Amino acid sequence: MSKQKVIINDVGPRDGLQNQPKILSLQERSALISALVEAKVPEIEVGAFVSPKAVPAMSGTADLLPLLPADGALYSALIPNMKGFELARSALVPLTSLVVAASNTMNEKNIRMNTEQSVAVSREVLALAKSQGASVQAYVATAWACPFEGDINADDVFSITEQLINAGASGIVIADTIGAANPAQVARLMDGMTRRFDSHILSCHFHDTRAMGLANVYAALDAGIRKFDASIAGLGGCPFAPGASGNVATEDVVMMIEQMGFDTGINIPLLLKAADLAIALTGSATGGKAKSWMEKYYNN
Amino acid sequence: MSKQKVIINDVGPRDGLQNQPKILSLQERSALISALVEAKVPEIEVGAFVSPKAVPAMSGTADLLPLLPADGALYSALIPNMKGFELARSALVPLTSLVVAASNTMNEKNIRMNTEQSVAVSREVLALAKSQGASVQAYVATAWACPFEGDINADDVFSITEQLINAGASGIVIADTIGAANPAQVARLMDGMTRRFDSHILSCHFHDTRAMGLANVYAALDAGIRKFDASIAGLGGCPFAPGASGNVATEDVVMMIEQMGFDTGINIPLLLKAADLAIALTGSATGGKAKSWMEKYYNN
Repeated sequence: MSKQKVIINDVGPRDGLQNQPKILSLQERSALISALVEAKVPEIEVGAFVSPKAVPAMSGTADLLPLLPADGALYSALIPNMKGFELARSALVPLTSLVVAASNTMNEKNIRMNTEQSVAVSREVLALAKSQGASVQAYVATAWACPFEGDINADDVFSITEQLINAGASGIVIADTIGAANPAQVARLMDGMTRRFDSHILSCHFHDTRAMGLANVYAALDAGIRKFDASIAGLGGCPFAPGASGNVATEDVVMMIEQMGFDTGINIPLLLKAADLAIALTGSATGGKAKSWMEKYYNN
Repeated sequence: MSKQKVIINDVGPRDGLQNQPKILSLQERSALISALVEAKVPEIEVGAFVSPKAVPAMSGTADLLPLLPADGALYSALIPNMKGFELARSALVPLTSLVVAASNTMNEKNIRMNTEQSVAVSREVLALAKSQGASVQAYVATAWACPFEGDINADDVFSITEQLINAGASGIVIADTIGAANPAQVARLMDGMTRRFDSHILSCHFHDTRAMGLANVYAALDAGIRKFDASIAGLGGCPFAPGASGNVATEDVVMMIEQMGFDTGINIPLLLKAADLAIALTGSATGGKAKSWMEKYYNN
C-alpha cells in the first residue's frame, strides 16, 4: 500500500523572517529558500508584497524571485490587497496568499475594515485573478481565537471559507495566528471543516506559543487535513522573549508526520541543513524541539 | 456541567531525579515533593526501593517518607521485586509500582527474566499485597517500542495488562519508556486498551524525546485516558545531551489539559514555583516547553 501524502508549505522565509529581529539580505533569503528547495520542500512562502516601511524584512521580494531556483517548489507570496496582487503578478509569483481574519475586531485593527468588507475586497482580487488564470489562496486568520474577541465562533469560519471558495480561492488555510488553539478545539473546528468542504483544498497553520503545535497538527491530521504550514527551525517569534510565538518547526512536523506513516517527499537530513542555515543566518532561531534527537537519528 | 477530571501523577522526584546527573539530598528531595503537594498535584512518585549502589539518586527513600507532608497527595514508590515491596511496606509507602516490559528482550536485559517470568514474579508481589490489603500498580514498559525489538505487538500489551489486572494490580500504566511512540500509534493502542479494560484503571506515561509528548497525551486523552504521568520541569534526561529524553513536563501537560476544559485540581502558579525549584535544585532541568508563555499568562 502506498503511503498517504502530506504537503508541507514552509513559511519560514516570510512569516518566520518577518517576525525575528534581523533583516536578511536578498542573497541570504535566497540561500535559505534554495536550501529548502534542496530538501525537496514542495511549497515555500518566499516573501510578501507589503510596504517596505512597515515590514522591512520583506522589502525587495520582487527582486528576490529571479534569484531563486527555477524548479522544484511552488513559491507563494503574501499580498495584503489588490495593489499587492498586481505587484506579485508583475514579479511572476505563481501563487499569492490573501488574508481575512475570522474576527471583526482583528480585521478592523489590521486593515480598518470589518470582516464583510475584507471578504468583499478579497472577492475583487479573486475575480481579477480568475480573469488572468492566476492562483490565489486565502488565509482565515485568528480562526480559533482573537486577542481582542477571544474564542471565535466556528460558524464564522465556515461562512468566510464558503464565500472565499465560491469566489475562486484555490486553497483555504485555517490559521491559529496567535498560537492559542488547543487540540480539542482544532479537532472540533477541522472536523466541521472537512464535513463541509473538500479536504484537499484545506490546510492548517499553527504557532507553537503554548507548546501545543505538534498536538494541534496531529488533531488536524486526525480530522483529515493533509496540508500544513510550518517554519524551518521554528523561525519567527524570538525564543528569548516571554510569549515567544514562532510557527511550529518544519523539522518537527515532518518528523512526526513521516513517523506516523505519511509521505512528505522531504529529505530530512537536508531539511536539518536548511534549519542550521536558518539558525546561522538569523542568530535567534533555535531549531525544532526534537533537534538533538533528529540530528542523532537522521544524520547517522 | 462540571468539568471532567484528569489525574496527574508527578514522577519527577523519581523518574526525573534518577535520570539527571546531580544527586539531591533527602532535604532537597523533600522540598521538591512538598512544592508539588503545595501545588495540589494529587499523586507523586516519591522514590524507589532499589539498590543504592545501582541508583544512588534514590538511596534513602525509606528515610525520605517521614520528611514529607502527611496529607495532600498519594505517594508512590517504584519497586523492582519482592524485596523492594517489603522495604516499601516497612516504610509505609501507600502505593507501590512494579514494572513489566512488553518486550522479552527488555525484560531479559533488565532483570534476566523473560516476560512470562517477569509477570509471574509480579503475580507473587500482587498476591502478597492483596493478603496485606496493600495497593500495587503495574507499569507496562516499552509498550510501543523497544530499543532491541522495535515495534511492540499490541496483543502483547493487552495480554500482560489482563494478567496483571487479574492478579490484582490497582492500576496499569502504559509507558513509552524510550520516547519513541507517535500519536497515531498512541491512538491505536489506547483505543484498543479502553475497549478491553475499564479506562479508570488505565494511565499513560510519555517521554518527550521526539517532541511528541503533548501530541501523545492528546491522542491518549482522545482515546478516553484520564490519568497521566508527567515530570515537573521536564526533569529527567539531560537537556544538553543528544537524544535527551526527559518525561513530558508536568506544567505543559497541565496547561494543555486545563485549556482543553478538563480539571486537574492543580494550582498552576504554584506548579510553576515547583518547576523553578526543580530547575534550581538540579541545575540541568530547563522547565516545560511553554515556560515563557505560562510565566506571562499565569503569573499576572
